[in-house]
Amino acid sequence: MNLERVLIGKPLRSEDAVHQAISNKVGLAVFASDNLSSVAYATQEILIVLAAAAAATATKAASDSIYGLSIPISAAIVALLVILTISYRQTIFAYPSGGGAYIVARDNFGDLAAQVAGAALLIDYILTVSVSVASGMEQVASLIPVLYPFRVGMCLIAIAFMAYMNLRGVKESGAFFAVPTYFFVVVMMLTLFVGMVRWATGTLGTVQGVELVQTQAENLGLFLILRAFSSGCAAVTGVEAISNGIQAFKEPKSRNASNTMLVMAALLGVMFIGTSFLARQVGAVPSESKTIIFQLGDLILGPFVPILIAATTLILILAANTSFADFPRLAALQAKDGFLPRQLAARGSRLVFSWGVIVLALAAAVLIIGFNASTTALIPLYAIGVFLSFSLSQWGMVLHWWRSRKLKPGEFAPSKHGTLHHAPGWTWKLVINAIGGTVSVVVMLIFAATKFASGAWLTVILIPLLVWVFLRIHHHYQGVARALSTGKRVVHPIARGMQVIVLIDDVHMGTVDMVEFAMSLGHPWRAVHFNVDPTKAEKILAKWSQRMGDCAHELTIVPAPYRNLSTVCANYVSSVQMENPDSLIHVVMGQIIMDSWVAQALHANTSIGIKLKLQSMDGVIVTDVSYPIHREDVENAPENETDDFGATDTHNPHHAGDHKEAVPAKH
Amino acid sequence: MNLERVLIGKPLRSEDAVHQAISNKVGLAVFASDNLSSVAYATQEILIVLAAAAAATATKAASDSIYGLSIPISAAIVALLVILTISYRQTIFAYPSGGGAYIVARDNFGDLAAQVAGAALLIDYILTVSVSVASGMEQVASLIPVLYPFRVGMCLIAIAFMAYMNLRGVKESGAFFAVPTYFFVVVMMLTLFVGMVRWATGTLGTVQGVELVQTQAENLGLFLILRAFSSGCAAVTGVEAISNGIQAFKEPKSRNASNTMLVMAALLGVMFIGTSFLARQVGAVPSESKTIIFQLGDLILGPFVPILIAATTLILILAANTSFADFPRLAALQAKDGFLPRQLAARGSRLVFSWGVIVLALAAAVLIIGFNASTTALIPLYAIGVFLSFSLSQWGMVLHWWRSRKLKPGEFAPSKHGTLHHAPGWTWKLVINAIGGTVSVVVMLIFAATKFASGAWLTVILIPLLVWVFLRIHHHYQGVARALSTGKRVVHPIARGMQVIVLIDDVHMGTVDMVEFAMSLGHPWRAVHFNVDPTKAEKILAKWSQRMGDCAHELTIVPAPYRNLSTVCANYVSSVQMENPDSLIHVVMGQIIMDSWVAQALHANTSIGIKLKLQSMDGVIVTDVSYPIHREDVENAPENETDDFGATDTHNPHHAGDHKEAVPAKH
Repeated sequence: MNLERVLIGKPLRSEDAVHQAISNKVGLAVFASDNLSSVAYATQEILIVLAAAAAATATKAASDSIYGLSIPISAAIVALLVILTISYRQTIFAYPSGGGAYIVARDNFGDLAAQVAGAALLIDYILTVSVSVASGMEQVASLIPVLYPFRVGMCLIAIAFMAYMNLRGVKESGAFFAVPTYFFVVVMMLTLFVGMVRWATGTLGTVQGVELVQTQAENLGLFLILRAFSSGCAAVTGVEAISNGIQAFKEPKSRNASNTMLVMAALLGVMFIGTSFLARQVGAVPSESKTIIFQLGDLILGPFVPILIAATTLILILAANTSFADFPRLAALQAKDGFLPRQLAARGSRLVFSWGVIVLALAAAVLIIGFNASTTALIPLYAIGVFLSFSLSQWGMVLHWWRSRKLKPGEFAPSKHGTLHHAPGWTWKLVINAIGGTVSVVVMLIFAATKFASGAWLTVILIPLLVWVFLRIHHHYQGVARALSTGKRVVHPIARGMQVIVLIDDVHMGTVDMVEFAMSLGHPWRAVHFNVDPTKAEKILAKWSQRMGDCAHELTIVPAPYRNLSTVCANYVSSVQMENPDSLIHVVMGQIIMDSWVAQALHANTSIGIKLKLQSMDGVIVTDVSYPIHREDVENAPENETDDFGATDTHNPHHAGDHKEAVPAKH
Repeated sequence: MNLERVLIGKPLRSEDAVHQAISNKVGLAVFASDNLSSVAYATQEILIVLAAAAAATATKAASDSIYGLSIPISAAIVALLVILTISYRQTIFAYPSGGGAYIVARDNFGDLAAQVAGAALLIDYILTVSVSVASGMEQVASLIPVLYPFRVGMCLIAIAFMAYMNLRGVKESGAFFAVPTYFFVVVMMLTLFVGMVRWATGTLGTVQGVELVQTQAENLGLFLILRAFSSGCAAVTGVEAISNGIQAFKEPKSRNASNTMLVMAALLGVMFIGTSFLARQVGAVPSESKTIIFQLGDLILGPFVPILIAATTLILILAANTSFADFPRLAALQAKDGFLPRQLAARGSRLVFSWGVIVLALAAAVLIIGFNASTTALIPLYAIGVFLSFSLSQWGMVLHWWRSRKLKPGEFAPSKHGTLHHAPGWTWKLVINAIGGTVSVVVMLIFAATKFASGAWLTVILIPLLVWVFLRIHHHYQGVARALSTGKRVVHPIARGMQVIVLIDDVHMGTVDMVEFAMSLGHPWRAVHFNVDPTKAEKILAKWSQRMGDCAHELTIVPAPYRNLSTVCANYVSSVQMENPDSLIHVVMGQIIMDSWVAQALHANTSIGIKLKLQSMDGVIVTDVSYPIHREDVENAPENETDDFGATDTHNPHHAGDHKEAVPAKH
């Protein structure tokens, strides 16, 4: 596996997975990027919805007053942020070992709710990647317009790069997170501060020459305002991230995590409302080719705007990257619970959940291609899952407090999946989570109603579909467990007779190993060649009798004129089984094993069809006798000893189509 | 393999691969789509190059006279078409069994030239897919402008659909080819005829309101004219297609094939020059958002333009589809010669070369994404490989005639890869092919020089790179053949002792089969469990002693605290090997086999790491004892017999990370 080593890096030991406790400063950097990066697109998406109403007005003043609504809408979203932050603070203290929506839902409502939360979260992790990368590339394209037509390709390269880095399982230091996060916070705050000062002193000017987004005119109404509000709600996504990672903090863990979340919410609130306010003052234009961040930066920073764009793009990429940790971790949880394929729970050699990384990258790439890397087109799919998981989590907490109501100080009781502790002041806590839960449900319904036609329908269909798939998988694993069960009975394995069939494709050093193995078994054996090409069969028969010395067995030739090797082989094995009804049938096949991944790819799979067919037969056991060939063997083989097999023996221009379907023995 | 059956269709027998001889009319439809469909973009690409010079002029008259150059340039390309057609006519008669560039080059120059031709052709087949699909979607987007931003996604869907249909191996009837081809020829000819009549009577008008392609101004010069010529040369691609498929025609095959090629060339010439002429008369605007075909159709046909767009898109898709037959066929030829991985020569169950189809679709998709589905961006990569293969083919024919010069009537001589016949009038034939060859080389050089910076460099790098890879693969296969060779010596296989190690992951019905197999072998055996989770190991030990009855063997527990199962296992096997230096070590593993592809995916691969490690050890043989579980077993298993293994036994919220790396036995 040399190539894998070079590309993926050397394997890690399991102890390396243990994290060191991190400070609050690093914690903010690690968990806040998804949340804070929303500033890059939330204001813009509000304005793009309002543009439809602005297009329906006649005068500039009327259109200005419509865009002015972006400020109260942003304020409402900040209020929502405050409610969610207070609610999640309680989860952090109640679930100090980590209280993601999946775990809280499973603990309080059981498996079905947990799977709903799981489906919603998996979809959202995928969308976090797509939306963040799409927005990041829009920022870059705002700065360098020639790149605009290549956004899809650029997004796919960015996703492939992140998948590669995460498959390598880079040891992410605090600096990996801290540099982009704090760089963004500092640059963004500075931009807003300078902007405010220049606005207050009247030296800021207004945005000029930006192409307005194309949109259908629509009269202003409550529905449109709610739609704008829904679009802006993308800003609060990621607010729950810290509640998943409490264990990463220093003691007192819950207290530190909670304080960090408050700082994050405060930063987000200030940056978001600041952006919306300034965007309005300078008359920023809703546009996909020039992002709002770029328009603000261009006006405020002038020649220094590339710094802002770099900072914004970096934190967006970092936000996407956090999904590459979160998605595989959640998928592994679900896989361990038996609701997703088991392979998702298997750590790869670098201690990461390789399959999860690959699935996430592919799904995000499909969305990027399907929605043409447009943030505006992706947003309607996004927040519905977030608010569904918020709702399940918050109402789960309500149930949690309700169940703990009768416990005395120091007392605790086992719950279905954890423990319940005494909670002083549980009534207040219940009320707070009930408010958070109600708000989440309301926002989710507003979102579903206003965004249904423009894309939310896809999420609305996908979540129940995924839940159904998860339940089917669970049903399957349970059925297999029952089918495998010995029913707690004592079983009595007995020795049986054995008939050995050696499948011969050619006579070479690998064949010798197969024959030695068959002879060593000490049971009756026979050698068989399936004849798809009479010329070749004659040659093999001749070589067999000349070279196999005194091993004394005839080589049986079985005709296979239709090249349907696997059927002919299965029929032959069945006939042997019929003659020996009490015996196991042991089929011996050959396989060349090369040192390297690349070389192995040149030899693999040629006999897979036969093997698959035989393995599904009862009482038939298949052994691959592997013949390892090392790099040195290939390079140092004596030049004159070439035999007449291998690729060269088929050097015939007129037989491209006459190749066999599968080859039973080595090569 | 139920799912495969549903998706890919039922397997075909090899006899079904034999084609019936086809009439000239059907032959034209089958082989001409690649060639004729070039009309859809060739004129447009000439005008787009000329637009750069037009942008540098001040007056409309000057710019008009520059666009006027498109007519002489088109005439020059038609002259090139005539030369190539006459040259290829000779190939058809000299290689009646099929004379593609790969075969002609191999026959006359040997393997290296053949691989160069192979690399050039494979690249061109990929580009035929990309360019045709991109142009097809540009036609559609001209008609329905809202689709314009989604071209990349539409192209990818079209490619995926073609790949799927070709993996299914649809039996393509004559009608499949005839309908789109003749529909296009008729509609296009009718459009040109009506256009000519209306132009002659002065009722045609001019193109209005089309957005000019964005381009950098550049002064008119020879270099720019040659670049326009190169772009237009995309028109002649596909002219050689018939020479590959002579065997498909009725007797006299060569005569019929040759006549069909003449008709094809005549149709192409008329349609191409007609399009270029009319485009000029109506002042068609070089543009990517409105194709020239659409502009002409809009003006000439008015409300009936959708018919022309449908016909053009259909023939472009058909042209792309022919590559899905040509690419796998050529790749199989090269694979049989040992220059490409062998799997490419293996027909899938539906008698098509599945791997070739998949590789082609992926490569074309990468180009579509990388070049943003723009025909203009893809064209510079395209024709260089075509003209390289033309050159090799034509000069190969020159050598062919030269070698046949001394043969008398009725006499023939064996050549390296075929036979040489007497050729009356070989001098003339040699001269004609030399002219064709010279013209091809000249066009190739013009192309490389004028298009190098805009994309041809990629092809110029890729072709030698691919040839190098092909030669490395050949070197590898030859080395393996030598390493496998018995050196024509007699070998003496001998029976050896055997130590059997059964890897136990859990105790269930599958385990019983493994133990029965081990007992039946009649050699010393032992059962081993690698302990990654002490709680689980205790349970397994208890179940083993309670349930395995009187099989009398202890279960050995080997600690594997670092979860590095494959290393621990390899070390254990090595230690057994050390104690028994003369014995084969036979490792028995378990594997669950499900009925369906989907169910199998839920169980596969969990033990692959261990298996790969053991297979590369000398003297170690690995047997998978498969335990088939059928759908009925899963559905009908008695509800109360569930044992405590399976997915459910790991139902612990706090251990997502503590999963083992790989599992040795069943699930």
